[in-house]
This record gives sequence, C-alpha cells and structure tokens, in this order.
Amino acid sequence: MFELPTPSLILDAEIVRRNLRRMADYTQAHGLALRPHTKTHKSRELGAMQLREGGAMGLTVAKIGEAKVMASITKDLLLAYPVVDPRRAEVAAHLARDVQLRVAIDSAAAAQALGAAAMAADSSIGILVDLDVGLHRTGVQTPQEALSLAQLVDSTAGLRLDGLFFFPGHLPAAPPKQIDALLALGAVLGETLELWSKSGLQAAIVSGGSTPSALNSHHIGHLTEIRPGTYIFNDMNCVHGGSARLEDCAARIVATVVSTAVPGQVVLDAGSKTLTSDLCGPAPTTGHGYIVEYPQAKIVKLSEEHAQVDVTQCNDRPQLGAQVTIVPNHICPCVNLQDQIYWLEPGKPPRAMPVDARGRVF
Amino acid sequence: MFELPTPSLILDAEIVRRNLRRMADYTQAHGLALRPHTKTHKSRELGAMQLREGGAMGLTVAKIGEAKVMASITKDLLLAYPVVDPRRAEVAAHLARDVQLRVAIDSAAAAQALGAAAMAADSSIGILVDLDVGLHRTGVQTPQEALSLAQLVDSTAGLRLDGLFFFPGHLPAAPPKQIDALLALGAVLGETLELWSKSGLQAAIVSGGSTPSALNSHHIGHLTEIRPGTYIFNDMNCVHGGSARLEDCAARIVATVVSTAVPGQVVLDAGSKTLTSDLCGPAPTTGHGYIVEYPQAKIVKLSEEHAQVDVTQCNDRPQLGAQVTIVPNHICPCVNLQDQIYWLEPGKPPRAMPVDARGRVF
Repeated sequence: MFELPTPSLILDAEIVRRNLRRMADYTQAHGLALRPHTKTHKSRELGAMQLREGGAMGLTVAKIGEAKVMASITKDLLLAYPVVDPRRAEVAAHLARDVQLRVAIDSAAAAQALGAAAMAADSSIGILVDLDVGLHRTGVQTPQEALSLAQLVDSTAGLRLDGLFFFPGHLPAAPPKQIDALLALGAVLGETLELWSKSGLQAAIVSGGSTPSALNSHHIGHLTEIRPGTYIFNDMNCVHGGSARLEDCAARIVATVVSTAVPGQVVLDAGSKTLTSDLCGPAPTTGHGYIVEYPQAKIVKLSEEHAQVDVTQCNDRPQLGAQVTIVPNHICPCVNLQDQIYWLEPGKPPRAMPVDARGRVF
Repeated sequence: MFELPTPSLILDAEIVRRNLRRMADYTQAHGLALRPHTKTHKSRELGAMQLREGGAMGLTVAKIGEAKVMASITKDLLLAYPVVDPRRAEVAAHLARDVQLRVAIDSAAAAQALGAAAMAADSSIGILVDLDVGLHRTGVQTPQEALSLAQLVDSTAGLRLDGLFFFPGHLPAAPPKQIDALLALGAVLGETLELWSKSGLQAAIVSGGSTPSALNSHHIGHLTEIRPGTYIFNDMNCVHGGSARLEDCAARIVATVVSTAVPGQVVLDAGSKTLTSDLCGPAPTTGHGYIVEYPQAKIVKLSEEHAQVDVTQCNDRPQLGAQVTIVPNHICPCVNLQDQIYWLEPGKPPRAMPVDARGRVF
C-alpha cells in the first residue's frame, strides 16, 4: 500500500491542516491566544506550520532540550515544566537571552534557581505560577499559595511575573459535565486573580487548556491562552473521549502482517516499541489501537516488536504480508519513538520529516 | 548526585560485567551456545563486550535495521523475526552477502520471499523454523507443520535449513513449575526433530531461551543455543519474577524531584516517555518502577514527562531538586527511548554510550 519500511508513522497532510484550521478559527473567534504544545509532534516543520497557518502566536514545550530546538522557529516559548535544578535553570537562562522564555513553576526553589540563573546569564525569565486546579500533579494548592509565590517571583531579580498557569487534564471528557467543570475552574482562577490584584499584582497571561477541552475553553473565565498539543493529530483517546472523530485522526502507524501461524490471529510488526503500552484512557478495554482497514480486529497483546491481533470477529482477514494502518491510543509517545515521520500529500509519495526535538534531554 | 542532565539512563559497569559473566559461565558449563538478544541494549559497544568477554558466539536482533548495525561487530547474526515482505527480504539478502545471517520464520511466504531475495542478491540465508511452544504469538503450530516448512526451506534455492527456533516467553517465572514446563518443551522439540530426522532433515541449531528461564535452559532437551536479552541489565520484571535480585539490576533512570506541591506526593521528571507505561508483569500493582533510595515510595501515575510518586509511606522523603534512581519495570523499551546511555565505572565520571541501533527500522 505504502512504499515505506514498516513500522512507520504517516501523517495525512489534509487532516493535519484541517485540525490546525479548526483550532485557529476557534481561538480567533473567542479572542484566545493559541500556544500549541509541541510535545506531540516535536517537529520544527510542524511547529512552523502552526505558527504560519495555524493561528499560533508562540509554542509550548515540555523539556529544555525541546525549547532549544523550537527556539529556531519562534521567539516566544513557554516551558510548561517546573525548573528547580541549577543545570536546567542555567540552560533556560541562556536561552532567555535569545527568545522570550516563560516557565511555569510551583515552588520557591524554582523561583530562586531561575532568578539566580537569569542574573548570571544577564537575561530575564517570565514566570507563570502553576495552580493545581484538580489534577493533583503539579501546582500550588490554593489561591493564597499562588499569591505567595507570585509575590516571591515579583520580588526576585531576573524574573518577571507574567501570569497564571494550569493544566486541566482531569476534566470530564465531554459536555455537559465538562462545561460545569470549566465554569468552576474559571471561578478558582478569578478568586486567585482577585487576590493578586488586591496585592497589586497582575496576570497578563492566564494559560490553560488541553486538547479534550480545548474547543470549550471559552467557558473558562479569565483565560487568555490555550496550549493544546494532541489536536494536530488526534488519536483514539480523543475519539473515545469525544473531542475528535476517527476522520480527524491524522497520524497512523503503517504495519505489516508478519505472521498468521496462530489460528484466529494475525501478528503485526508494531509492538510496544512502536505503539507504546498506553491503553486508551476513556476506553481501556479497546486494545492497543484501532486498525482502520479491519474495524472488527482487536490488538489484544503487544510485545516489543509484535502486535497480536484477534481477527476472529473479522469477516475479511488481513493476509500475510499485507499492510494495515493503526490509529494509536495515544499519539504523543508514539511520535517520540520515531526518528522520522512521513508526510503524505494527496497523490504524492511519502516525504520523511525529522522528529527534531525527540531525544533532547537538554 | 550524578553530573548528568535528567532523566538519563545509567549503567553500573560492574553489575553489567557480573551479569555477562554469570551467563557466560552457565552456558559454558552446560555446553550451550550463547547468542544474546541485542534488542535490550541496541549498543555496538555492549554487543562487542558480549562477544569479547561475555561468552557470546554471535548476536540476535529483532529488526533488519538492528542487524545492519550489529553486522559491524559480528559476522554471525540471527534475525529473530519473521520476514515476509519483499523489501525486508531484499535488505536481509544483501546483508547475507557480508555476514552469516539466519532468520526465524513460520510461513511458506517467508521462505519464498527470502529465497527469491537471496537468489537475486547471490547470497544464502540460513533458516530456523519457528515452532510455537505455547506463547501463541508466532510459530508453526505442530511438529508436522514444522516438518512441512522445513521441507519447503530445504527445497528452496537461496535458503539453507539450519534448525529449529522457539520463544518460551510464556513459561512460569520460577521453579519448580518452570522446570516441569522446560522438560515438557524439550519433549515437543524431540518429537519435531524426530519427524525431521525420519525425513532426512537435520537441525544443526535448536535455538530458544529468554532471560527468565535462561539459567534453567539445561532442562530443555535438544537445545543448542539460548538468546537471552534482558540478562545484561535485568529489571523489576526479573526481580519480581525471581530470575534476578535487585543488586543484579545494572540499569537505572536518574531523575530529579521537580515538584513537591501536592501533599504526600513528589513529582519526578521521568514519565512514560522515559519509563514507558509497561507495568511489572509478575507484580502489576507495584507501580511504574522501583525507587532505590526510597523503597517505600510508589510511582503511582505517569504522564509523558511526570512521575507522580506517593511518599506517604516514606519515613524520609526526597527533597525538591534531589536526584533519585529508578529501576524500571521493563528495561528494554526504556533504553529504546534514549539516544545515549551512561556507563559508570567506579570512581569515574559517567561516559555517554550511543544507543546505536535504536530508531533503525531498515
């Protein structure tokens, strides 16, 4: 089907552009800034496309190594990850000489490390105070704690208090419960900002949003920007969660049927080193991805380079040597396993695109 | 603790050497050939060490791209993976001009594809017939089917029938049940080889063995070689399965505590893009790896770059900014996420070692 070695990851160019356009239109319509999270694609070319035609005003990264790569395509970066160790702070501070770098933090130690590094590097780092709005992963725990940290940042040389940050990764997948949660979230933000305001502090930026709730972000009061990542490709998490349809999934793994020896089963050359072991969050019993050409097939078991597929429910079974395409459960860590991914324009051969920022720790 | 960016993967040189020595001594004592599976380390340097001081007479690979890399350090390679598509067969056949390449297959289509490619490349490929001994992943289903495929291989130009192959990945983790299973397995091999013998076919090689049962391989009748991979590093699967002790685990992830904002929890910078989502097979409720310095801590949840660690049971808790080291549940896919890993000799600074064969599809 595809003139590609397998397993490979292919991107449907038209679906990518449609996904970018949808988010660009949405954020424009609601007056929200869009700062896509590049952890999903780790590609300079796709990041540049988000900036050029996807309505993005800057980019979000998870690692300082990703920031260094993306600094070649934008001067406006948010490191959505706490920096507490001097090594990382030093790299961040040096980067902040060339780009407008912001970092989301949740501790005094992070403020001190970044401030000291910025002073040493003669740069300035923008800080967003990370507020835990219910995921309980990172983030200060109360509006009062957010105020204390904001005050510390405001008084720390080398730092600039730019605003508030949160990650709503815990929200109900779909309306109406999601809307209620977004409204409640806005109230907490409002409470926090009021405390800041009373203390003479302003939040120029209030940054939140992830793909599942991205298109309902206008229900979050006080929000100024969103940072969806997965939306550029979508995946089975999005489909089962309700934020995308199958036809919105731009990324697939191309795999080959390498064995049909066991009755009722075919084996594909896409194992956990290709699809990852991530189950589908909203539908954990659906197996390890969705085989587009054989919807009744179920990927029941992965080893490192093998996917065992139960084909007993298929009217028509994939033949030995045939290619199939799989929409992964979670696309972000799948891209992270590839050195290059393949861009497919209609009627053209696949074009290799490097995953520039993968493997970049620092 | 370590002068390294985090998250990084470190190797204790002394433990690696001890692990290699143990397997070398075992195979030598029992007259078994040792052909380590390089999927675990994907490193030319470590493969060369296995050949030079680890008793290995050749190497095993999972992908044709790995075979090309390892061909630079040995002329004796087994591709433990079916090859059915013409593209992969062509690469294999070209490689077989330079090295003695064997491939394990379970279908007539694979024999035909490899035979045709070998003829076109003017090379010869050794074939091991893959017999399913109970894992039900790949492999012909009966001794009779093994005979039929062996006969086809024997009569296919470009191919050389070299023997029998199996993967005992389904065996009980520990004796005494494991020993019973190994004895039963030997009986099936014997039945198959007797059928071959009656038809005038010989198996110069009978290749099996994986790390959990490797040191009991002498209980498998007719076996000539084993292909353990994980034994070079070991991991929590090995520890909980009983094939290794914690002090035999040579590979750890070095991570930094990046947040302590949520009460009772610390967050490490090693998420599913570092530790993978693989649970521990023999102990799936133990979380996402073992933190050596804080045995009472439990890695309860991973996101891509965050590990959420429950520290409520710890007398002493890791401080913000501190480094910890983690023994992963499953080391092989963790190595596969790194571009380089760090070799630690006592008293010396960590030395970067490239993971040469990762990302090599073809």
